[in-house]
Amino acid sequence: MRNQQVNVGIIGLGTVGTGVARVLLQQRELLETRTQVLFNLKAISELDWEKERDIDLSTVKCTTNADELLNDPDIDVIVETIGGFEPAFSFVSKALKNRKHVVTANKALIATRGRELFEIAQENDVKILFEASVGGGIPIIQGLREGLIANNIERIYGILNGTSNYILTKMHKENLEFSEALKGAQENGFAEADPTLDISGGDAAHKLTILSSIASNSFVSFESLYVEGITGITKVDINFAKSLGYTIKLLAVYRVFNGGLDLRVHPTLVENKHLLAAVSNEMNAILVKGDFVGNTMFYGPGAGERPTASAIVSDIVALAYDLLLKDEKYRTPTIKTTTDAKLIPIDEITNRFYLRFFTRDIPGVLTKISGVLAEYGISISSMVQLETHEKDNYIPIVLLTHEALEKSMKQALEKIIKFEFVKDDYLRLRIF
Amino acid sequence: MRNQQVNVGIIGLGTVGTGVARVLLQQRELLETRTQVLFNLKAISELDWEKERDIDLSTVKCTTNADELLNDPDIDVIVETIGGFEPAFSFVSKALKNRKHVVTANKALIATRGRELFEIAQENDVKILFEASVGGGIPIIQGLREGLIANNIERIYGILNGTSNYILTKMHKENLEFSEALKGAQENGFAEADPTLDISGGDAAHKLTILSSIASNSFVSFESLYVEGITGITKVDINFAKSLGYTIKLLAVYRVFNGGLDLRVHPTLVENKHLLAAVSNEMNAILVKGDFVGNTMFYGPGAGERPTASAIVSDIVALAYDLLLKDEKYRTPTIKTTTDAKLIPIDEITNRFYLRFFTRDIPGVLTKISGVLAEYGISISSMVQLETHEKDNYIPIVLLTHEALEKSMKQALEKIIKFEFVKDDYLRLRIF
Repeated sequence: MRNQQVNVGIIGLGTVGTGVARVLLQQRELLETRTQVLFNLKAISELDWEKERDIDLSTVKCTTNADELLNDPDIDVIVETIGGFEPAFSFVSKALKNRKHVVTANKALIATRGRELFEIAQENDVKILFEASVGGGIPIIQGLREGLIANNIERIYGILNGTSNYILTKMHKENLEFSEALKGAQENGFAEADPTLDISGGDAAHKLTILSSIASNSFVSFESLYVEGITGITKVDINFAKSLGYTIKLLAVYRVFNGGLDLRVHPTLVENKHLLAAVSNEMNAILVKGDFVGNTMFYGPGAGERPTASAIVSDIVALAYDLLLKDEKYRTPTIKTTTDAKLIPIDEITNRFYLRFFTRDIPGVLTKISGVLAEYGISISSMVQLETHEKDNYIPIVLLTHEALEKSMKQALEKIIKFEFVKDDYLRLRIF
Repeated sequence: MRNQQVNVGIIGLGTVGTGVARVLLQQRELLETRTQVLFNLKAISELDWEKERDIDLSTVKCTTNADELLNDPDIDVIVETIGGFEPAFSFVSKALKNRKHVVTANKALIATRGRELFEIAQENDVKILFEASVGGGIPIIQGLREGLIANNIERIYGILNGTSNYILTKMHKENLEFSEALKGAQENGFAEADPTLDISGGDAAHKLTILSSIASNSFVSFESLYVEGITGITKVDINFAKSLGYTIKLLAVYRVFNGGLDLRVHPTLVENKHLLAAVSNEMNAILVKGDFVGNTMFYGPGAGERPTASAIVSDIVALAYDLLLKDEKYRTPTIKTTTDAKLIPIDEITNRFYLRFFTRDIPGVLTKISGVLAEYGISISSMVQLETHEKDNYIPIVLLTHEALEKSMKQALEKIIKFEFVKDDYLRLRIF
């Protein structure tokens, strides 16, 4: 008896699309051995067929018209790899309406228009899977959904943006300013020409939105997350962090707190001895704490043609089992859209803080600053002042605080930067 | 419409069995929300009901007779948590013959009698799942089988035995001898009264057997693995490793090599800057390299009531989907028993080596040792001699080699320890 076949169509033959085509062609036999299913790459749609690509597509139907895939009744699974909002949204929704399963790595689309798409999928009795949207090749979504299914997920700390992590690593290791590190990242292909989405924390926030929905069994809205990027971090801060035994990382945080969720993305000081501090360059890692399993960590490449393709094909395989099994009710559940998560506003969160000010070198500065902090109930755990970093007659001062409420810190800072001896480009980071 | 129900029976109410019962009772609602399936803990068999256990079993049938579970037509899944070979093997095979799915954490059973059990399972059209048998709560088996399914698995490096890792960590951090660290591990519950299976590398080898079968799509026989434990490591070695920038870890290695598999368990020097070096105490980690995904790492607690129960219940959930879907052919594949893996003998493997000898402090010692190594084509990359470790008029010498064939190293060592100026309790470790 012949093995059953699943027909796949890819929309978009950029980096990720090419990777998926490569896996499906190159690992066809491996996949058939492991699954008893024949995965057939039937068609690819792409506007630019002139571009040089090192791949033999002679067995695949190649077109510039996505509708040829979307309207092909033989195609079971559509892989969307064009990214962005449009025409990706239109293609994905049309595929779902035509009762095709969809696999995508498009974190922006899932994080911001997921609700509509999941509802269309449900109405049409098909699924959207998106393992590659978070952590690249790391099977973190499956890990949360299946491996850790018996756990209430209490915390997630993720290094989810490879570009930011690469830049921060270079700043730490090569003593670079942010702009120099960014330039290097762009030259080495680890940052886009327009890096805004990455360095602003937006990309990490898209990914956190997705993880949070799964972890909490509820729908999380992207707009409600608290997000800070890494653009304000200077060499001075990196060196202070170092001298204190910390590494600065852009962390995405998920935390069950006071009956709701504490969700944020911001640069964070992580103790050097912590595993997350050792996650360098473009690598990603996600630390997950479940009430039964305790702390687990998933680590791997967060982007790139081959890791992303690995994750996308794992989703295609998961869909194949479904397709061949038919039953509707007992499929692996995807993100719930019926219950909204209750978010805790950032103001209600407490953290330890790292504060860096540039101040004039005059008597009484520390007394006045610590006085304001005390006024708002914030106590200082340590203080560092280095004479070597003088800049325009200002010297840097760093304070580490004990746990303090975000709201109190915000109010204290508003007051502190009104002192005429304090420059207004201060930095406030949170300590892990 | 009521959700469908899956009835579970647990054989053995020790640490792990109690954990599974706790998850099924405590997370019943969570699991139903996530899966739309009601997981009902129907019965537990255990010989010792006198023992104090902090769990309310008033809704569960409690018996001392495992047959009451094995013969109950309502029970869909049997969880075996008694460990060891008998009566575990008899119970598991009877369950399978009675067409019940089985979930177990019993690595010894799966690694050594898995072939028989998988065949019985196949004949009776049921499954055995064993996520908890490797890496405790870490979803590594699922990760290999599903998340990384698109990859040829090229390498696995695992810290798979929590007891050994705990002992080595204490030796490193507290400058203890092996026996002192072992005693501490026993006092703190991280080593058994009889720790042989753990410190000999046997337990890690059981786990490597299981991972290798999955990674290679072929059956691996436990007896064919090369295994060394940690009992020969002394404080002197730990300190040398430290001074050279290494941490000693008990590593399980899977490597595709020369058309076959390189499988071994032995203590290994890992560079301090490597993530695996940061895996401390009783924690486990598994680094997996796939041809598409690249390097990924899975980290978490390798044992304990709650992490193990987390993994076991993830298997019960996976079986529930199967049970409710019915179809036979397209179930997630388990270990193949039809193809034997081709193993490469340890002699044909090359490695960098760490060699430590105690020698008399006389002229010409190094010349003679390095002469023998050269004779077998082994070249030295660095050499350290510390005057501070004198012991019975012998001084320690450490050599690091470039890549060398195992067979050559064995022959060279046989020759070297015949020198009258060399004590015969030398140590040879491999460098990662």
